[in-house]
Amino acid sequence: MCGTDSPASINKSSLPSANGNDTRSPTCSADHVLNLEQGDPAVFESYWRKMGDRCTMVISGSQLMSYISDFTNICWFMEPEFEEAVRRLHRVVGNAVVDDRYIVVGTGSTQLYQAALYALTSPGGPEPVSVVSAAPYYSSYPDETDYLCSRLYKWAGDAYEFDKNGTGPYIEVVNSPNNPDGTLREAVVKNRGDEGKLIHDLAYYWPQYTPIIRPADHDIMTFTFSKSTGHAGSRIGWAVVKDKEIARKMSKFIEMCTLGVSKDSQQRAAKIMGVLCDGYQNCKSANKSDDLFFEHTRQIMAERWERLRQVVERNQVFCLPNYPKQYCLFSGELIEPYPGFAWLEAKEEEIDSQKVLRGSIKVQGRTGRRFGVAEKYVRISLLSNEEVFKEFLERLSTIKSMTSNGH
Amino acid sequence: MCGTDSPASINKSSLPSANGNDTRSPTCSADHVLNLEQGDPAVFESYWRKMGDRCTMVISGSQLMSYISDFTNICWFMEPEFEEAVRRLHRVVGNAVVDDRYIVVGTGSTQLYQAALYALTSPGGPEPVSVVSAAPYYSSYPDETDYLCSRLYKWAGDAYEFDKNGTGPYIEVVNSPNNPDGTLREAVVKNRGDEGKLIHDLAYYWPQYTPIIRPADHDIMTFTFSKSTGHAGSRIGWAVVKDKEIARKMSKFIEMCTLGVSKDSQQRAAKIMGVLCDGYQNCKSANKSDDLFFEHTRQIMAERWERLRQVVERNQVFCLPNYPKQYCLFSGELIEPYPGFAWLEAKEEEIDSQKVLRGSIKVQGRTGRRFGVAEKYVRISLLSNEEVFKEFLERLSTIKSMTSNGH
Repeated sequence: MCGTDSPASINKSSLPSANGNDTRSPTCSADHVLNLEQGDPAVFESYWRKMGDRCTMVISGSQLMSYISDFTNICWFMEPEFEEAVRRLHRVVGNAVVDDRYIVVGTGSTQLYQAALYALTSPGGPEPVSVVSAAPYYSSYPDETDYLCSRLYKWAGDAYEFDKNGTGPYIEVVNSPNNPDGTLREAVVKNRGDEGKLIHDLAYYWPQYTPIIRPADHDIMTFTFSKSTGHAGSRIGWAVVKDKEIARKMSKFIEMCTLGVSKDSQQRAAKIMGVLCDGYQNCKSANKSDDLFFEHTRQIMAERWERLRQVVERNQVFCLPNYPKQYCLFSGELIEPYPGFAWLEAKEEEIDSQKVLRGSIKVQGRTGRRFGVAEKYVRISLLSNEEVFKEFLERLSTIKSMTSNGH
Repeated sequence: MCGTDSPASINKSSLPSANGNDTRSPTCSADHVLNLEQGDPAVFESYWRKMGDRCTMVISGSQLMSYISDFTNICWFMEPEFEEAVRRLHRVVGNAVVDDRYIVVGTGSTQLYQAALYALTSPGGPEPVSVVSAAPYYSSYPDETDYLCSRLYKWAGDAYEFDKNGTGPYIEVVNSPNNPDGTLREAVVKNRGDEGKLIHDLAYYWPQYTPIIRPADHDIMTFTFSKSTGHAGSRIGWAVVKDKEIARKMSKFIEMCTLGVSKDSQQRAAKIMGVLCDGYQNCKSANKSDDLFFEHTRQIMAERWERLRQVVERNQVFCLPNYPKQYCLFSGELIEPYPGFAWLEAKEEEIDSQKVLRGSIKVQGRTGRRFGVAEKYVRISLLSNEEVFKEFLERLSTIKSMTSNGH
């Protein structure tokens, strides 16, 4: 689910650039705040535009009307075509084991995260189960865990802290590559016997962002259409689940929460994933690699990171993480990660980086505090369209030194 | 949201008739259990098939990719075209006041019910707020209220009972026309000053089911695409809300729960509602009334009720409610309600009607116990396709007398 959270805190009159929708182009005049707080995946739009009619979805007025997709499936509201497309996509990419696994569709991976919490905690013990993730953790986990004040589970913060001082049953969310900082991660809390359960949020474990180092094979893995192909507006996610009973409970949660998941969007996702896979399977030799989704988008991300690193190194105000090259099973090469977010750290201590960016160059990022760390960190989306990204770099290059008052 | 709940309890090997999807036709052989437990709205499919290409939705691979629809709207993930279509539909039908009201889109009205509970209770007090509805109440309210064991609210059962003996802050859900029994309803709990809040679930307040006696004008009203036009697979609902802060909190809930609502389905709903309204507004004189959605579907429901009443009166085993004729502002006539469910009551006491129907004629309904009343009641969906409905009547006509053992 990682990447896009509440836009509520943003000044609404100054958000021309937040919208990657092709019908509502952003403008980048210097007066406007450049909203790079959310991870809206506009960067991928140009690829799909290039695909022309191949991914066009046509639905007549009388199709897809029933609540039900397949009563023989534990996840009875999942379109069989969607399930098949998901399995095929993972087999093509090699980023997750899907044989002998259950697939559960959700309204984005946001819903699947909550479904997993429900499945791992119901029917609830006397105390809520602690939910933890290693800081810096995805900024929406706390809200999504606690907004209904459930007696089943509660947000308990940083997993490193819990590993040292926490007790009792817990769920650790392992977000890999991690949002906000792009690192590949493993579980942090160790040696607790049966007390711990894991959820692996693999929203960004796709070749445009990271080397695919192995087919992931965890108990509960969540993925999202938003970050894999960039179709956030469809609100489609899926979980790959080992245990039948967990898959059943997750499906039950989604049934009680939203009585299923949009069939229109499931079918659209199946179509788009199908075209993506066709590029690799049916006519690989005939395609230039630029026509292949992951090669094309990885190239864009690589270029963005190169341009970003140049600006950041030149003005000496922030640092960026350095990522080791690793062997990627998908591309067959040693490659560097190119995360969807820049995790900027101010070189000076006690700087509120979000405030400085907002005040001095009118760029809206998200403060490190939201991710459980210091305010000298700020997260900036690198998934905007090219016009916005370019404007961001131009503004960033004008920053000379940092002060907390914004000038 | 009313109508379709968990299919989990159904024998999965015997559900050929549950699926109204045009690509997977039901079969009705006598061996099969006829599943009329859910309110899957297959009855409306033939109308939309007749509309041909007029409602066909075409979405290219590069459209609708952003999370964001309109940052200037409280409900920032709502497509402007959807909001406009909803307002137009209510103005055409006259079933709800929408001027100076906020619209909030949800993943079906199931999600909006929960969003309303959240909006009316957060930030929670020391005790969970009691949620009540007059029995027989929609069978999913209890589960949808309690599945996360929230500290904000809890299911407290029958509103009549609460009116007599309950204390403290409460929310009453007024479902009108009511699922399961089709009655037009008002709030039950009285004279509690500021302690009570209301949610009006108006899923069935459409001209095919009921006379439109006035434009509804309540604080929070929820509607669903599933029951208005029959497009349950799209998971689209909406709320009409008087108070800005409540609309904001409901939107916040949906943001935390699913980070928005499928844009594909919002756009599809807008298109279908638009074609429906065009029928009334642009070319009314040119259309036969059979081409108009509500006239066409009301006619089907009227015929089904007539056929059903004949069978029920002939075999003298069950009673059906009688509904008074009322003046319908939409049609300009005195008309009878034709609810989407038959609420059958066994004439003999201490009969388990669900068990009898299942055992003797292999018809799966839902027991009155699930709706908070006696097991002599059973709810049967009247929204199946014609083949299934006809088979149901044929089987029902073979019941001669009631015994609880199923024969």
